[in-house]
Amino acid sequence: MTKYVYMFGNGSAEGSGALRDLLGGKGANLAEMAGHPHLRLPVPPGFTVTTEVCTHYYAQGRSYPPGLQEQVQAAMEHVETLTGRRFGDPHNPLLVSVRSGARESMPGMMDTVLNVGLTEQTLPGLVALTGNERFAWDCYRRLLMMYADVVMEKATGREPYKGEGIRKFLEAQLEEYKKSKGYRHDTDLETEDLQALVKQFKVAIRQALNESFPDDAWQQLWAGIGAVFASWMGKRAVEYRRIEDIPDTWGTAVTVQAMVFGNMGNDSATGVAFTRNPANGDNFFYGEYLVDAQGEDVVAGIRTPAPINKASAKAQGREDLPTLEELMPAVYAQLEDIRNRLERHYRDMQDIEFTIERGKLYILQCRAGKRSGVAAVRIALDMLKEGLVEEQEALARIGPSHLVELLLPRIDPKSEEKAKPIAKGLPAGPGGAVGRVVFTSQDAVAWAARGERVVLVREETSPEDVDGMHKAVAILTSKGGMTSHAALVARGWGKCCIVGSPDVEFAPDSKSFRGKDGQMVREGDWISLNGTLGHVYLGRLPLADADPERDPYFREVMRLADKYRRLGVRANADTPKDAAKALSFGAEGIGLFRTEHMFYGEGSEKPLFLLRKMIMSRTEKERRQALDELFPYVKADVKATLEVMEGRPVTIRLLDPPLHEFVPHSEDKIKELAEALGVTPAEVRRRGEALQEANPMLGHRGVRLGITYPEITEMQIRAILEAAGELVRAGKKAYPEIMIPVTCAAEELLHQKVLFDRVLSEVKAKFGLRELPCSYGTMIEIPRAALRAGDMARVAEFFSFGTNDLTQMTFGFSRDDVGAFLPHYMEKVNLDGQKPVGILRADPFQTLDQEGVGELIQLAIERGRKTRPNLKVGICGEHGGDPESVKFSHRVKMDYVSCSPFRVPIARLAAAHAVLEEMGVKVKRV
Amino acid sequence: MTKYVYMFGNGSAEGSGALRDLLGGKGANLAEMAGHPHLRLPVPPGFTVTTEVCTHYYAQGRSYPPGLQEQVQAAMEHVETLTGRRFGDPHNPLLVSVRSGARESMPGMMDTVLNVGLTEQTLPGLVALTGNERFAWDCYRRLLMMYADVVMEKATGREPYKGEGIRKFLEAQLEEYKKSKGYRHDTDLETEDLQALVKQFKVAIRQALNESFPDDAWQQLWAGIGAVFASWMGKRAVEYRRIEDIPDTWGTAVTVQAMVFGNMGNDSATGVAFTRNPANGDNFFYGEYLVDAQGEDVVAGIRTPAPINKASAKAQGREDLPTLEELMPAVYAQLEDIRNRLERHYRDMQDIEFTIERGKLYILQCRAGKRSGVAAVRIALDMLKEGLVEEQEALARIGPSHLVELLLPRIDPKSEEKAKPIAKGLPAGPGGAVGRVVFTSQDAVAWAARGERVVLVREETSPEDVDGMHKAVAILTSKGGMTSHAALVARGWGKCCIVGSPDVEFAPDSKSFRGKDGQMVREGDWISLNGTLGHVYLGRLPLADADPERDPYFREVMRLADKYRRLGVRANADTPKDAAKALSFGAEGIGLFRTEHMFYGEGSEKPLFLLRKMIMSRTEKERRQALDELFPYVKADVKATLEVMEGRPVTIRLLDPPLHEFVPHSEDKIKELAEALGVTPAEVRRRGEALQEANPMLGHRGVRLGITYPEITEMQIRAILEAAGELVRAGKKAYPEIMIPVTCAAEELLHQKVLFDRVLSEVKAKFGLRELPCSYGTMIEIPRAALRAGDMARVAEFFSFGTNDLTQMTFGFSRDDVGAFLPHYMEKVNLDGQKPVGILRADPFQTLDQEGVGELIQLAIERGRKTRPNLKVGICGEHGGDPESVKFSHRVKMDYVSCSPFRVPIARLAAAHAVLEEMGVKVKRV
Repeated sequence: MTKYVYMFGNGSAEGSGALRDLLGGKGANLAEMAGHPHLRLPVPPGFTVTTEVCTHYYAQGRSYPPGLQEQVQAAMEHVETLTGRRFGDPHNPLLVSVRSGARESMPGMMDTVLNVGLTEQTLPGLVALTGNERFAWDCYRRLLMMYADVVMEKATGREPYKGEGIRKFLEAQLEEYKKSKGYRHDTDLETEDLQALVKQFKVAIRQALNESFPDDAWQQLWAGIGAVFASWMGKRAVEYRRIEDIPDTWGTAVTVQAMVFGNMGNDSATGVAFTRNPANGDNFFYGEYLVDAQGEDVVAGIRTPAPINKASAKAQGREDLPTLEELMPAVYAQLEDIRNRLERHYRDMQDIEFTIERGKLYILQCRAGKRSGVAAVRIALDMLKEGLVEEQEALARIGPSHLVELLLPRIDPKSEEKAKPIAKGLPAGPGGAVGRVVFTSQDAVAWAARGERVVLVREETSPEDVDGMHKAVAILTSKGGMTSHAALVARGWGKCCIVGSPDVEFAPDSKSFRGKDGQMVREGDWISLNGTLGHVYLGRLPLADADPERDPYFREVMRLADKYRRLGVRANADTPKDAAKALSFGAEGIGLFRTEHMFYGEGSEKPLFLLRKMIMSRTEKERRQALDELFPYVKADVKATLEVMEGRPVTIRLLDPPLHEFVPHSEDKIKELAEALGVTPAEVRRRGEALQEANPMLGHRGVRLGITYPEITEMQIRAILEAAGELVRAGKKAYPEIMIPVTCAAEELLHQKVLFDRVLSEVKAKFGLRELPCSYGTMIEIPRAALRAGDMARVAEFFSFGTNDLTQMTFGFSRDDVGAFLPHYMEKVNLDGQKPVGILRADPFQTLDQEGVGELIQLAIERGRKTRPNLKVGICGEHGGDPESVKFSHRVKMDYVSCSPFRVPIARLAAAHAVLEEMGVKVKRV
Repeated sequence: MTKYVYMFGNGSAEGSGALRDLLGGKGANLAEMAGHPHLRLPVPPGFTVTTEVCTHYYAQGRSYPPGLQEQVQAAMEHVETLTGRRFGDPHNPLLVSVRSGARESMPGMMDTVLNVGLTEQTLPGLVALTGNERFAWDCYRRLLMMYADVVMEKATGREPYKGEGIRKFLEAQLEEYKKSKGYRHDTDLETEDLQALVKQFKVAIRQALNESFPDDAWQQLWAGIGAVFASWMGKRAVEYRRIEDIPDTWGTAVTVQAMVFGNMGNDSATGVAFTRNPANGDNFFYGEYLVDAQGEDVVAGIRTPAPINKASAKAQGREDLPTLEELMPAVYAQLEDIRNRLERHYRDMQDIEFTIERGKLYILQCRAGKRSGVAAVRIALDMLKEGLVEEQEALARIGPSHLVELLLPRIDPKSEEKAKPIAKGLPAGPGGAVGRVVFTSQDAVAWAARGERVVLVREETSPEDVDGMHKAVAILTSKGGMTSHAALVARGWGKCCIVGSPDVEFAPDSKSFRGKDGQMVREGDWISLNGTLGHVYLGRLPLADADPERDPYFREVMRLADKYRRLGVRANADTPKDAAKALSFGAEGIGLFRTEHMFYGEGSEKPLFLLRKMIMSRTEKERRQALDELFPYVKADVKATLEVMEGRPVTIRLLDPPLHEFVPHSEDKIKELAEALGVTPAEVRRRGEALQEANPMLGHRGVRLGITYPEITEMQIRAILEAAGELVRAGKKAYPEIMIPVTCAAEELLHQKVLFDRVLSEVKAKFGLRELPCSYGTMIEIPRAALRAGDMARVAEFFSFGTNDLTQMTFGFSRDDVGAFLPHYMEKVNLDGQKPVGILRADPFQTLDQEGVGELIQLAIERGRKTRPNLKVGICGEHGGDPESVKFSHRVKMDYVSCSPFRVPIARLAAAHAVLEEMGVKVKRV
């Protein structure tokens, strides 16, 4: 008989932290905390139903495996023994919580039912046990509301009652009741009130859902377990997994645990704490708590919690509130001891949920704490210094998205100095952001879809808002603390976020809010957020780039990364300025210098005019004349960058785009060109139109231009080699690598190589040089070039994969047109009636498609190196800065990746991670 | 020491026919004729310098290998012994011819020098030997002209003297001399005239070429050998090889042979004969001769030769001229005996050159005769019947281009009946052609380049005209016989050609001609040719398709082909009419039925309107409504073709093109559509513009439409399955194969398969059918689809390679835009200073690129069959009708090819050839 149920409690457990896949994160950690000899923490006893049951549940038409019922019953008996209470017993009732727990934390995405086992029969027993009638009836009221919502409505897949759902319906009745009695708070409700409400709710539930609330402990338990499994495929959970790339097949476990109550009076409390500050990594015990409350109250952000100690109070700017340390010093001391033991045990920052029931401390949950990127970097490196973790593990824990946060733009400090915040809140997500205000998740999605940058502003967020939060550039809430839903989610994503700002005062229709000095902010207004400080500004403040080099933690990460990585990292740069930036970020060369950049933007007027003159020429003679005029510009352009790079390799790609991209459209440009060419403007227009193509991506560009007009190639090669020659003659270093784009056959390379060889010897003669360091290679960006790589490498000394175009052609996707269908390809759809999957797992223009494009790359490298063992191989598409693609590049034995200067640190880290993975170290992938 | 020289003559030879690669076709055949015990024909003695010497010559900077000189000297001594004359001897001089000879015949493409060894010193000896002073001086005059032209000018790579060359310059002097003397013919020249001319020529040569004519036998010989090697890389030869796909590396041999003279008076003659009629294959001895002439006179077409016998006279319509049979019956009888022996020996139709010197017959050359396609088919099958060849060899000898001729269009017989020819000539190349008259090869090239169909009309053609002849749809000459240059070349290409039409009378400027009744035909005028009859008509007569099924030879070829081939052959057809035609050509199914055809051309108005309505819809509801209206049209369309095919498989491709292709542009169509949709015309225009794409080839089309608008797929699948269902219910057979286009991932197929499965069960239920034969598969036309074929085959029951698109994406070539550079890619260029090569050997849209695209295909088949061993695989691009691509399809184990109905017979033949090649039989490739 397969074991489906694992018990824990009272200093022992059947499972352990190692069984995470089977018991889920929550179940495994509870078992570890309860049973591990170094811990044996005060965990309320309970048991976990494994993820295998969830898998069976979905594979077998939502049914349970045989034997499960018996195992659950036996486990419940064990809990009864440990607690000395009985489930469903009218005199001495055991109440339980029923919670989800997936392999990876999906905070708030699945459902929970508390107080299961409370019925009209057991309620008097609870009153007797606690001596608190009001408390018992309040628990019952809560159970009715939660059960109707989670189990009776959501889990059954019904349409939400009256569009809003049964919970809102019951809440409205509660509010109305309070109003009729003149009450302001829930705590004003007396036992009689709660009794009346319970009666009223039962009728309302039956009326709304056509079904009675089951006043039977076991019926509640099984329906509760089913509801948790059902919530695994709920809309929120599916969405979250899509964003976080968690497979649908993992399933969730269900943990059933004896209830403990933080809402049993002023000697009771509940709280959430982190072993270090999750916002910046500071090494002190950080947390919040609420007296006389259940756990859901803290997370939901309905009441603003108080800090657990002075340090937390200071960090949160809430030094006015009484800390747990002050209020219950003994319990706090016990909690702090647990904090220290947990961190030593897990060797990572932990997120702890605790409850104090009449002065007794219970630990309900612990897990690796979500943290900001800044915090992740600092915690990893601090723990390395503290000797808690080894170097490799510290490096493996720093994910690319963590490092990105250190590189995030922030509000320009000078502008911020002059601006006055309209609101202050808790700094839940770092960095700066500027966007237009929207007030609903739906609006955030819709506005973002049309290209707007939006800031989602809400009183609080809930799992239903995940989609809109993801699309927003930042999130601002008026309620909730550092452990509220908004803060947790934003922190995980490294998104700019400010929570719990009391200055934000919503208008009744929630379509505007006022700042602390009464400034009105309406939908569509621009605001700017400093998520690191928690300041909100009206209008658009300028964003400034980060300066990570001044951060010792950043420098240490880079030092470690460089210690491990073997893959070279270059940058794509077209100007001396970009080249200098790339160097400062640690680039070891330039992997892509696009010669055409000089025809765009500032200072391009004259060269662009000459290029146009060349394009519009009708004879080789005319063309050569224009090329001669263009030559000094190209040479100067190349020389400036070669000089900055001081002999590091600079891969210079010859002219790549189709010529018609440069055809003038404005009347005066056409006229100017016509005069220069001695033809009519109409003729210029005609020649321009003749260059139009049906599919320019597959058209007359790259080497195809060089073959039809060899003089274009010749001019470029001469300009590059003379630029290098001038530097070498002046005693400097220069190493240009001439790269031929858009090739599909070795003969193209041979054709251009004849020109290269001739020009090289001419330039050497001209400058009186015996040697001129340079090399000749090609971009591999057409499927056929990859297939014929063995031939190509006979001529090319290096390959650089142009993965943007290679992806376009391997998929048959035009990047310019893919918008019409790619979103549909990323959407999960129900193909086999069970599991929703996307046609594509990721946008292949963002993350290299290893299965298709990747196979071509691998094959090209193998074939190329077979012909030329010392073939230099790199990648210069935008994938060069994508961590998974960098690791792929390492695995297929490339020499280097090249990416935008800003991504160079990410690529260095990812390259080190690739080595760690090779050594069997598990690394943080995002 | 390598043997570089092979001797032959007097009934023995060092080489044989088996040494073709080494001795060239001419050398090998001379050795065979001289030395083979069954032949021992009267061949003038000589020797052959091997092709290896040519290879050495080009590899080693135009130098000869050591030892060659000694071997040539020894061979010459042997010839001297056999002839009893001495090379360079003033009293008893041996004269020789120096001829080229490649592995494959390249008629007239390389140079020949005759009368080598004749000098002022040896001339008296020749006079003494022949007793004919005038003859000797005429030989000398000819040598001067030929030598100056071939050896002193062409072989040195000089610019042609005065643009026209030394030969024209000397010919002009000859003409002027004759004019000054009042002579009309060359035969009017007396010995003294020739002596004067020789003197004058020597001065002219020295003046023009800055070099003296070498009056030394050995110097002439070596320079002559060098000139033949040089002509291997001459412009004409290189062009010819490019067209015929003969490798440059083969090189030519040089055969040096004792001269015999057909120009020694009325008992001398020279001629060319075929063992059967090369125009239609009739089994009789066919040939032409000229009395008192050298061989070059026959081939050059300067004098119109006479038929060798009655049968030839009848076939040529030249029954007025005296035949060789009548004139020299004994020699003729000997010649006919040789004809019979040669055909029995070679088991193929032979082309024989002979010379009669003072009544003695010499055979100068024999080779497999060029023949028309019609003749090739008939000769092969007749020889099979006669027991000369085996079945496999007969089939192997019939090339695809031969069969094409049987399928060639001809002048519509009814129109021809009513028309009156303006000229009649010899039917040198079969079929009909209609084009505009041009008078030079250059014009033919230029006009054809701008898309004109041209007929090249010339007095005679020469090797310089090859390019223009290739570009012309037909060739017409006023001079020359069935063995003239024009006739030989056109026959080899299967091109419509009429030669030697005395009715064509050129105007002095050669820019117009008159027909037999004085009709004036100018450049650009349309004429129509019946190449099978030799009739020329003024104007454009309609062309009619061939009706090969009525030809028993065609049927026999197809019977043999079907006996051997294993590859299936289907046709691409979109209408019942095309389907019926495909069946008549032997198609076994339809490999590509394009659903979108119904929106083009006749009868498409209503469906196109509905399609447009669908495209312009903004909501799924609007779209579904338009699709519902379109449904019956699609169903009827599919049903008609399924019915014709009677249960044979019909692969129906779902909508493939991007939607904007169907967007209306005319004002009234826009208005009509706007009314139907209830929007403004401006809105219709706006929606149309929104569908425009940057690269439509890589855009929103094929399955991508089906994924974004599943209702489009659903309607099509329902229409197809209901069409089949209606037929099956009516007791008929139908087998639709539903093909999803433009796929790149298995998940796309899965997505559409859900629709397919659902609609299939709905249709079965609707028609009360337990089974509905059909299958579900995909086109493989995107590189990634080929790479992921293993996954694709989990869903697809069949693959059909769309090689047009696969070629576009594998090469990154847009078929619509490739015109700007592909011609440059096909041009041979000098990459390494030695051998000119093209960047691409062939247009990849014509002949499948086996190295690149082919590898993807092979890999996809292997991966697909690994997943699904019974996966059905075919090809449906235009390559399906290209013989080399068909053979490739066989080799990679496809199940079938599909091509246009007209190409089905070619594909059947090529499929049989693939099997023969597998068995080791050498087949005719063109």
